[in-house]
Amino acid sequence: MAQTSIILRIELDHNHITFGDVAATIGKAGGDITSIDVIRPGKDSSVRDITVDIAESAEAAVVEALKSHVGIKLINVSDRTFLAHLGGKINIQPTLPIKNRDDLSRVYTPGVARVCTSIHEDPKKAYSLTIKRNTVAVVTDGTAVLGLGDIGPHAAAPVMEGKAMLFKQLAGVDAFPICLDTKDTEEIIRTVKSISPIFGGINLEDISSPRCFEIETRLAEELDIPVFHDDQHGTAVVVVAGLLNALKVVGKKIDSVRIVVNGIGAAGVSICKMLLAAGVTRLVPVDREGAIVRGGSYEHPMWQWLAEQPQVEAEKGTLKEVLRDADVFIGVSRGGLLNADDIQTMAPDRIVFAMANPVPEIDPEEALPHVRVLGTGRSDYPNQINNVLVFPGIFRGALDCRARRINEPMKLAAARAIASVVTESELNEHYIIPSIFNEQVVSKVRRAVIEAAILTGTARRTPKDFR
Amino acid sequence: MAQTSIILRIELDHNHITFGDVAATIGKAGGDITSIDVIRPGKDSSVRDITVDIAESAEAAVVEALKSHVGIKLINVSDRTFLAHLGGKINIQPTLPIKNRDDLSRVYTPGVARVCTSIHEDPKKAYSLTIKRNTVAVVTDGTAVLGLGDIGPHAAAPVMEGKAMLFKQLAGVDAFPICLDTKDTEEIIRTVKSISPIFGGINLEDISSPRCFEIETRLAEELDIPVFHDDQHGTAVVVVAGLLNALKVVGKKIDSVRIVVNGIGAAGVSICKMLLAAGVTRLVPVDREGAIVRGGSYEHPMWQWLAEQPQVEAEKGTLKEVLRDADVFIGVSRGGLLNADDIQTMAPDRIVFAMANPVPEIDPEEALPHVRVLGTGRSDYPNQINNVLVFPGIFRGALDCRARRINEPMKLAAARAIASVVTESELNEHYIIPSIFNEQVVSKVRRAVIEAAILTGTARRTPKDFR
Repeated sequence: MAQTSIILRIELDHNHITFGDVAATIGKAGGDITSIDVIRPGKDSSVRDITVDIAESAEAAVVEALKSHVGIKLINVSDRTFLAHLGGKINIQPTLPIKNRDDLSRVYTPGVARVCTSIHEDPKKAYSLTIKRNTVAVVTDGTAVLGLGDIGPHAAAPVMEGKAMLFKQLAGVDAFPICLDTKDTEEIIRTVKSISPIFGGINLEDISSPRCFEIETRLAEELDIPVFHDDQHGTAVVVVAGLLNALKVVGKKIDSVRIVVNGIGAAGVSICKMLLAAGVTRLVPVDREGAIVRGGSYEHPMWQWLAEQPQVEAEKGTLKEVLRDADVFIGVSRGGLLNADDIQTMAPDRIVFAMANPVPEIDPEEALPHVRVLGTGRSDYPNQINNVLVFPGIFRGALDCRARRINEPMKLAAARAIASVVTESELNEHYIIPSIFNEQVVSKVRRAVIEAAILTGTARRTPKDFR
Repeated sequence: MAQTSIILRIELDHNHITFGDVAATIGKAGGDITSIDVIRPGKDSSVRDITVDIAESAEAAVVEALKSHVGIKLINVSDRTFLAHLGGKINIQPTLPIKNRDDLSRVYTPGVARVCTSIHEDPKKAYSLTIKRNTVAVVTDGTAVLGLGDIGPHAAAPVMEGKAMLFKQLAGVDAFPICLDTKDTEEIIRTVKSISPIFGGINLEDISSPRCFEIETRLAEELDIPVFHDDQHGTAVVVVAGLLNALKVVGKKIDSVRIVVNGIGAAGVSICKMLLAAGVTRLVPVDREGAIVRGGSYEHPMWQWLAEQPQVEAEKGTLKEVLRDADVFIGVSRGGLLNADDIQTMAPDRIVFAMANPVPEIDPEEALPHVRVLGTGRSDYPNQINNVLVFPGIFRGALDCRARRINEPMKLAAARAIASVVTESELNEHYIIPSIFNEQVVSKVRRAVIEAAILTGTARRTPKDFR
């Protein structure tokens, strides 16, 4: 039931029809009028732009109903989502105007030569004299974009641009989309290394598993700037943040609960790792072939790693089998895997994070009566587990302290910071996680990340507010 | 005699000294006060920022003179050029604010998925729904930066950022610096191809010869967006523009003059090619070993190409020898190669473009009495032959008509357009080329480039103003 918003430009013949008729026609066809702009008023006829919220599936019906009405001329239908994308969603601005030759000779030749020489003599100065200190590459190969899969680098660009908008608006970070025309692991690594000098950090995005692990690990090792695959760690951080608060709500402790994580891909692996780092002692990772068990032997190197962790349970079973008596279910897999009966086999005071997109692992309506806390990836239910809460603040912190990398303690600190934005008095079943528009989020995450970076020795600079 | 501009923050003890004393001290040491800002006024003492224009070599003397003066406390010396670079010179801005969930769902998930799908189905839509249509990569490997040589990708960044500022201010083009951490020709080609999807054009910059030829040629062939090595073609276009007007001033025709081009590197090769395309019939390319002659045999593929052109002269000789009776000298080589005696062996009504940076092939003061038209790369003499006149308009035109490439006819059209900005009545020995701040330049170059692109079939779109 995806909603959209369209703008209908219509000419009304006042001899045949009133605006009331138009409104009624749109309403009957399923549209909800949210604004009206008169483009050309007139006695006999007028032109108006009518903005209508509507289910995507009902759009054609509204258009047909209007077309068939005598006295209405439908001039144009535009889609607000597409309108917002026209010409792209970011642009590049000079920090100062070049008003005359004097200005030119400072920011360009010949004056710039002295600045270049100064960086050549001391490469660290790139952080003060170029955009490096505030600039992040948002890198994708377009292989795992949203739920759409491998749609390629051109089609992935709108997501990367959207991410760049969020980086700037929420955290003041300058982010530029790099959409790679290659899927080869080695070539991606080489390319990102090649273009790294201008960037202060690398946000990997929507790169399919398992290549994403190798790409991130190698880049983090071979570059001296932070590299962060958001689909893995952004998701893990926000899940742990939500879980910390959900456990408070139900009055359970992280070191005693039994947690089933379903879907051990990019996000699932990172979630499992962070849960272990956060103190979880009873973990059941599950993928298509059932539980990944301690002592098992697996081809996938990350599954094998999990099979070697003492906190991972040894009993085999299908998802439905291992779910029995679990305190927490975390799904980053596919829609419609579970029903109410399955949920009811869990231990009391259940916590269910069903985050498959766009259809959750269990229908939220079906789950709600049977759980204490429900989280989803969707904005139309409470507790949206959204990684937009994570990447702006993490990179703001990492850039400000010039962290070499983003390590586990920094991620865990970020999760705790996000959880801390919800106060004890606010905390309840329907409010375990703050809104992305909550202004405290970025500043708290930034502080926590910098503290952790300094403590773990990965910070190369102490920001003024930490001195 | 490079000039700089510094800001001196001083505290004045009014019991010992007046501001007049300070001004006199600065003046005597060679500084020129251009502005004064009182930071903290006071009866006994005050703090002021004094902006001073000064030769770089005299900066230390001013500082010393002030320090040794009783009653002056020098708090800080800052350099306006460095100040202009703090934090870099460009930033990235969202085109619209994300005010609420509704906005977010349009520019990011879930709404953005429809936009992605639409580009996936028709990749041409990347031009309307992403930043591609207005975005250019400014790509360097930092091997031939200004006159500084191979200073590396970090130190090259300030030049690329300056270029991005000019792109935006002069032509509204969004340009982003890509500074490559590799000098390998094949890897540069691979990397630029890899990152090309988000870009509508590639401006290669400050890549040393001869690698720049192969890199540009291959990228132009293998990509379907325009690729333009500014050091070659930007320089060639503006030289030809200046030459067209200089020939008008002296009343000679392009198809009858004899032209010596000295320095057959990146710029020199492109200048020779454009001169031939513009109708030159008597060309003498010269490099360190003397004239490159018709029928000669050369390792450098571009020299060999020149040796095969019928318009290239066959007589061997050193620069000084072949200069005799030349109508035009174009230098893109090294400083101090020629003197007044050499110039006087040229034919009457001489045109000399001495563009070596920062020291021209002949001292302008020495040349001026003996030439009709002198052009240099410097802003402190008339007729500055500056490629800032070229790249903004060329790319504006190429992007607006979605040119597949920037071909010779487009470059020649750009040169003629730049020349045409100087009207017949304005044209004289000291004014053959417009200022980069002349607002007609970009719009005239854009028009000419689009016309040529349409005529040569390389345009994939006809802009509205051409329909």
